[in-house]
Amino acid sequence: MSKRTDVNDLGEFGLIDHLTKKIEIKNPSSFKGIGDDAAVLDYGNKMVVVSTDILSEGIHFDLMYSPLKHLGYKSVVVNLSDIYSMNAVPKQITVSIAFSNRFSVEALDEFYEGVKAACDYYNVDLVGGDTTSSLKGLFISITAIGEGEKDKLTYRNGAKNGDILCVTGNLGAAYLGLQILEREKQIFLSNPEVQPDLGKNDYIIGRQLKPEARKDMILQYFPKANLVPTAMIDISDGLSSELFHICKSSNVGAILNEGGVPIRPDVEQQAIDFKLDPITCALSGGEDYELLFTIDPADIEKVKYMPDIYICGEIVEKSEGIKLHTKGGNIHPLKAQGWVHFNND
Amino acid sequence: MSKRTDVNDLGEFGLIDHLTKKIEIKNPSSFKGIGDDAAVLDYGNKMVVVSTDILSEGIHFDLMYSPLKHLGYKSVVVNLSDIYSMNAVPKQITVSIAFSNRFSVEALDEFYEGVKAACDYYNVDLVGGDTTSSLKGLFISITAIGEGEKDKLTYRNGAKNGDILCVTGNLGAAYLGLQILEREKQIFLSNPEVQPDLGKNDYIIGRQLKPEARKDMILQYFPKANLVPTAMIDISDGLSSELFHICKSSNVGAILNEGGVPIRPDVEQQAIDFKLDPITCALSGGEDYELLFTIDPADIEKVKYMPDIYICGEIVEKSEGIKLHTKGGNIHPLKAQGWVHFNND
Repeated sequence: MSKRTDVNDLGEFGLIDHLTKKIEIKNPSSFKGIGDDAAVLDYGNKMVVVSTDILSEGIHFDLMYSPLKHLGYKSVVVNLSDIYSMNAVPKQITVSIAFSNRFSVEALDEFYEGVKAACDYYNVDLVGGDTTSSLKGLFISITAIGEGEKDKLTYRNGAKNGDILCVTGNLGAAYLGLQILEREKQIFLSNPEVQPDLGKNDYIIGRQLKPEARKDMILQYFPKANLVPTAMIDISDGLSSELFHICKSSNVGAILNEGGVPIRPDVEQQAIDFKLDPITCALSGGEDYELLFTIDPADIEKVKYMPDIYICGEIVEKSEGIKLHTKGGNIHPLKAQGWVHFNND
Repeated sequence: MSKRTDVNDLGEFGLIDHLTKKIEIKNPSSFKGIGDDAAVLDYGNKMVVVSTDILSEGIHFDLMYSPLKHLGYKSVVVNLSDIYSMNAVPKQITVSIAFSNRFSVEALDEFYEGVKAACDYYNVDLVGGDTTSSLKGLFISITAIGEGEKDKLTYRNGAKNGDILCVTGNLGAAYLGLQILEREKQIFLSNPEVQPDLGKNDYIIGRQLKPEARKDMILQYFPKANLVPTAMIDISDGLSSELFHICKSSNVGAILNEGGVPIRPDVEQQAIDFKLDPITCALSGGEDYELLFTIDPADIEKVKYMPDIYICGEIVEKSEGIKLHTKGGNIHPLKAQGWVHFNND
């Protein structure tokens, strides 16, 4: 960046004006957006769905390899994913950030460019938020609000014995993208002369830096097939961890078929290059933002020819536990290994 | 605190369970609370009002003198105040926190005790949130959601020439409470043997550490008198700054009467003890969370005998500017001096 405007030159309100001047309201339900104490949403008889997340620098993202524009985009997407996973449609977001004066206006602009790009792509309105300072580091808190129909909202607790377990897209790439970025960071730190070797890994790195939420499923494929899953969750912490959430909430067990877990060949190869087990990356990696859901067996025909959906197991009685049926024919208990990170001060 | 449980002993999900186990849902519109990807709010034909805030340690609060329980309470109240200032009624909040491992479970319990106390007092439901770690410091992000009637919501932009300017409660105490706490902190830092002298200043310190939002106005006095202000804002950054917001949004000017600005005698005395100008504390101090609003002159009888409301000026043409009419009879331009703080990394 050549130009650097200090945040103090604008002042807080000037900064808000500056950051939000390009925001356009798109949804009729966004009755009142930025510019008042609160946003007002005009929902008729729809259900309002709200989700919120907080992202910390050094924990959820590393600015050494996360471009701020991508970070803005991703921060929005991970929240929208939570709304879609309710079988609801996100309509509004609020974005709050706390940042130190290491961040220039141009840097914040980049972040908000990413926020706006996500808002455009997902057709959501940025209706509010807060900008403030931190003594150290960047913190991002986003709240997403959406609408859904009462009888079509999909919770974690609706899975029942005999239901079929499905997953969208492919898993493990976001985790491996992170490993590549971390490797190149370490090489750079030990020798800043070496150019990063991100090579042919655009897809894998893109899954880490700029994930997408499955709006296609919620807006197109499910309604077109008249499919309402019995339970659904988005995969932020890894398939295993999310399956445990569904089973716990629904009071059921599950058998996951290793052969049904979708992994791209290039992702599988990348795992092997890192001497990692591909299925472990797929089950515990996280951040893929795909959807894990269960359907009534009567609905099997609806998903059979739906694009990008994989049948990967079934729901069983709670007493049977949560198990992995390996490609080799073995059955053993599945472990839930999501992300755990509570760091030092 | 005698007992200290490490956060890692619970794990993230265990921690969420732990922190939210005492949460009870009170409002029928809270259709689905904690325990899923998102909260679902069942509003009929009401308007949904959403507000969000982020608070940073070292910027918005100092844990040397802010007990965590009070901090939890205050964090909620400042957000509810934003909903009340729309003439709406808060119904739900989400609370997200990022914290370093310097915080024990007991410390977080204290924080959430304060959150719950505020939820109880203001009859709002905690319906979601996020807990995660930070490399350093505590960050709190709260989103408040409320409902209002379309024709009674009160924005910043409704003030018109001839309207009467009113303020609730009294101003300046929160700022002076902060000065007392800062003074005692400095004394303690230079000599930890000295006991803090908070003496007879309970009220003033309480206004800083545990403010309240004016639910009485919104729930009782205004509806009882059938009063709908033409514009309204809560006083978080100081009366001057808020008046500037109203005037800018409404495209009007204002004359503020110094004699009409409510300051308690003990607050006035405390200002003088600090060699500060009481009116400056009242106009620029901030954090009082009182309401500043404008009413149609035809409604003057409605507020005249309403408890705790003070008439402090009038709205004029924009060309007349925003001026202070001093007790001495002088008229000079008012300055907007809110809080500006963008600190170093």
